[in-house]
Amino acid sequence: MTDGNSEYSNSAYGKKQFKRSRSHFADRITADGRDGWPVEAGRYRLVASRACPWASRAVISRRLLGLEDAMSLAIADPIQDDRSWRFTLDPDGRDPVLGIRYLSEAYDARETGYPGGVSVPAVVDVPSGRLVTNDYQQITLDLATEWTSLHRSGAPDLYPERLRDEIDDVMRLVYKDVNNGVYRAGFAHQQKEYEEACTDVFRRLEWLSERLAGQRYLVGDTITEADIRLFTTLVRFDAVYHGHFKCNRWKLAEDPVLWAYARDLFQTPGFGDTVDFDHIKRHYYQVHTGINPTGIVPLGPDLAGWLTPHGREDLGGRPFGDGTPPGPVPAAEHVPVEGRP
Amino acid sequence: MTDGNSEYSNSAYGKKQFKRSRSHFADRITADGRDGWPVEAGRYRLVASRACPWASRAVISRRLLGLEDAMSLAIADPIQDDRSWRFTLDPDGRDPVLGIRYLSEAYDARETGYPGGVSVPAVVDVPSGRLVTNDYQQITLDLATEWTSLHRSGAPDLYPERLRDEIDDVMRLVYKDVNNGVYRAGFAHQQKEYEEACTDVFRRLEWLSERLAGQRYLVGDTITEADIRLFTTLVRFDAVYHGHFKCNRWKLAEDPVLWAYARDLFQTPGFGDTVDFDHIKRHYYQVHTGINPTGIVPLGPDLAGWLTPHGREDLGGRPFGDGTPPGPVPAAEHVPVEGRP
Repeated sequence: MTDGNSEYSNSAYGKKQFKRSRSHFADRITADGRDGWPVEAGRYRLVASRACPWASRAVISRRLLGLEDAMSLAIADPIQDDRSWRFTLDPDGRDPVLGIRYLSEAYDARETGYPGGVSVPAVVDVPSGRLVTNDYQQITLDLATEWTSLHRSGAPDLYPERLRDEIDDVMRLVYKDVNNGVYRAGFAHQQKEYEEACTDVFRRLEWLSERLAGQRYLVGDTITEADIRLFTTLVRFDAVYHGHFKCNRWKLAEDPVLWAYARDLFQTPGFGDTVDFDHIKRHYYQVHTGINPTGIVPLGPDLAGWLTPHGREDLGGRPFGDGTPPGPVPAAEHVPVEGRP
Repeated sequence: MTDGNSEYSNSAYGKKQFKRSRSHFADRITADGRDGWPVEAGRYRLVASRACPWASRAVISRRLLGLEDAMSLAIADPIQDDRSWRFTLDPDGRDPVLGIRYLSEAYDARETGYPGGVSVPAVVDVPSGRLVTNDYQQITLDLATEWTSLHRSGAPDLYPERLRDEIDDVMRLVYKDVNNGVYRAGFAHQQKEYEEACTDVFRRLEWLSERLAGQRYLVGDTITEADIRLFTTLVRFDAVYHGHFKCNRWKLAEDPVLWAYARDLFQTPGFGDTVDFDHIKRHYYQVHTGINPTGIVPLGPDLAGWLTPHGREDLGGRPFGDGTPPGPVPAAEHVPVEGRP
């Protein structure tokens, strides 16, 4: 939801501060269909940008759970224009399934004149062309817990009931200080606001580094939703947050624990195979002209390190619990080579 | 001479390109005084900014050669205003020796209506208040070779005659690809221009890393002018060039050889004791609003690493040749603690 659900608002002190908006469309797609949107194979289309960390959560969950056939995927151009996310990567600039050129058309179909931002991830009802939800905090939880009838055989439990309190606690801290903290740092207009955010980012990363020194995953001994949410920030850290957002006390690659943890996930099927560094870098450096007026996209960092051995197997852990890794990426969803390390 | 001797000019292709101007005032202060400016103790004042790599060469040479008493030092505010370098760090905003508020006053005293930029390093004739030279490529060579009668006892030979060809060759490559290369990358207006410059920077750094893997200093077995010129870029690399100028294939701290080489020099009297990271960071990030419109100065990188052991003594080498290290920094020239790692 980069650049969608966010705004600058006046704080109590009269200073502009970065605030991330709550999602406006919070209907849920559930097994029982209580919001009018029952889980159903082939009915919904996930609209994502591979640039966006919030949307990438859903792309990863969909892969891990084997929902590729049940819910199709539209990838937006990493460069929005003044009408926001668009399908300029597709033939004739139209999403081949929804037939629209801009994601905003699905928002408009849902609510005429909706004044908020257009954000990804967005789930669209294909038959009606209407947006169902852009609730980036809920979409992945529902994929994990409501879409179970359509999960592949061997799908992991990404949100195990007995660990939910702990997962929620960790995700809340990671959201505040890391997922959203890097944005607070990067979009700060005041030195003090930046310094507070940047300090929060690194204090929390140090806490995470300590936590992960002795355990392979954030909560329990398997991959959970908490790992997905941390990963989508960490994989962008050196490529964009370190320089572009000035979160530069150190690079991820300089923290042996977090760097190994991030590589471990990157090399796990369903994580790294969804990552497009080309989309990530071009989006941040070309769209945020208030931070990078030249629009120049850096050549670095060297990405080869992502594929080096991480040694985290020695900590034990069972990545997929009693399940199995996902199969290969569907041919139509391969990330082009130039976007890979 | 940051932001002084540089300009954007139209290339043959009609594209704006970064070009560093030649110094306009190229009189030399020599032992024989052939340009009208004889070497003389107490007559000249070096005006520098601790932010500026070109000026910092002269500050280091002056320390290594023990010329502190012979030639006094003025430190400009790292933040220029529209009249360029100014003495706002001094009481009443005036340089206590020259009595001027702006360095441009010494330029005007030399040549009325000079249309070029005001740059540091600048050497000013104290009795007349006139600029003598802003020739950043020549000033340090003359300190090494023309000011010998005023060198401290034990001063090193920074430009030994038998090695001059090799020193000149190395300095020429380092200037083109590294000293000036980072500026070409940082001030590029076009993606292609940036990419060529950034590629040059790292290709040359890799060449330097290979060269320095087996020898302690760039040329011969002692510190020379070539080391000084490389050092003033390297010490700024992670602090400003990596992020602000997008030279981010890797950090200096990620190249074991160059990082150890830079730390070795930093820990050598006369090098690190001249460095003010606070001036460096504030200058680049606050002055270049075309690159960093918010003016926010990053908290990173962590500077503690500069003082860690480097192990380069194992390569042999005699830092000062037959000479000795310089004495302590004069009390009036201490860099305040907040600018030190």
